[in-house]
Amino acid sequence: MLKKRFAFVNEIGKLKEILRVNLLRDGSRRENSAEHSWHLAMMTLVYMDMAEGPVDPLKVVKMALVHDIVEIDAGDTYAFDDEGLKEKENKEKQAAKRLFDILPQDIGENLRSLWYEFEDLKTEEARFVRALDRLNPFMSHMENEGIIWKEKKMTKTLLMSRMMDVKEFCPKLFPYIEESVKEAIGKGWILDR
Amino acid sequence: MLKKRFAFVNEIGKLKEILRVNLLRDGSRRENSAEHSWHLAMMTLVYMDMAEGPVDPLKVVKMALVHDIVEIDAGDTYAFDDEGLKEKENKEKQAAKRLFDILPQDIGENLRSLWYEFEDLKTEEARFVRALDRLNPFMSHMENEGIIWKEKKMTKTLLMSRMMDVKEFCPKLFPYIEESVKEAIGKGWILDR
Repeated sequence: MLKKRFAFVNEIGKLKEILRVNLLRDGSRRENSAEHSWHLAMMTLVYMDMAEGPVDPLKVVKMALVHDIVEIDAGDTYAFDDEGLKEKENKEKQAAKRLFDILPQDIGENLRSLWYEFEDLKTEEARFVRALDRLNPFMSHMENEGIIWKEKKMTKTLLMSRMMDVKEFCPKLFPYIEESVKEAIGKGWILDR
Repeated sequence: MLKKRFAFVNEIGKLKEILRVNLLRDGSRRENSAEHSWHLAMMTLVYMDMAEGPVDPLKVVKMALVHDIVEIDAGDTYAFDDEGLKEKENKEKQAAKRLFDILPQDIGENLRSLWYEFEDLKTEEARFVRALDRLNPFMSHMENEGIIWKEKKMTKTLLMSRMMDVKEFCPKLFPYIEESVKEAIGKGWILDR
């Protein structure tokens, strides 16, 4: 029993090596998915009362912690990479099987079901975590003055399409997006079209 | 209200820039305190039933998430740096005040009190998280074949003194430490004295 848990803990350390497109606050390097998952879990604690419906806080935090673990096998797919997104689903399901199967069955099943619940976006917990998972990189792009947005020639339309999850799942936080997008256009970080 | 929360979320992103003495699994770089905090929070989920007494799982996970946040101001102090450890306490308390004061009072007070609870080691939750926080770097040193242990000429006596928190607070996991230390001595990663 314990051997399996130790093996899993070692295995998931690899998430520290999975790089996202986002940069750190100061633009010095790309963010990895482990530190991102910590940041997201912290956001759930800070915004918990902003969820639209009643949520189980423990489930929310656990979901944030495991939501990107499948990237150990499947890699991080940039949010606007349409080709990559098609293949993503299958790769991630295989990854969820391999990774959570390392654990004793009951513990693995619990974490895997949380990951599936997050992907399915049917529960209030999943929707809340999804909204924060969209808000998180948005905030870091704002903080580093849109380095990546400028590089990718990000438009308001494309960015807003991505932010619809915030509008739908956590509308109390959406005014921040609207204000920030105005600011980002004014500063030339995104294109006004 | 919301402005304070956004400011806090941005501020704590700095934890990704705080480097620990530990190396990653593959020895390629030093670990930062944000990704370490994620790994520790994951460990709490995986070992929750190994806690010695009854614990509140949500409190445990939250404590793991915030346990190192004060390092944003106070830095990481190497576990065996006695001089550094003396100054650490005051610096960390000031950091806890500054950082959690960024938040609206109720949210900040909740997180700050979790940090103090962790430091005081009086509750079962704090003791459990502390044991895992000692186990975590131990596991990564084992995994990268004791790179840092060899560099620091680590002795069994010194290492075991540090692992007493595992023995005391989470004895079910201590046999792993004992076995691993034997292995590490056999392989020349630590000195047998």
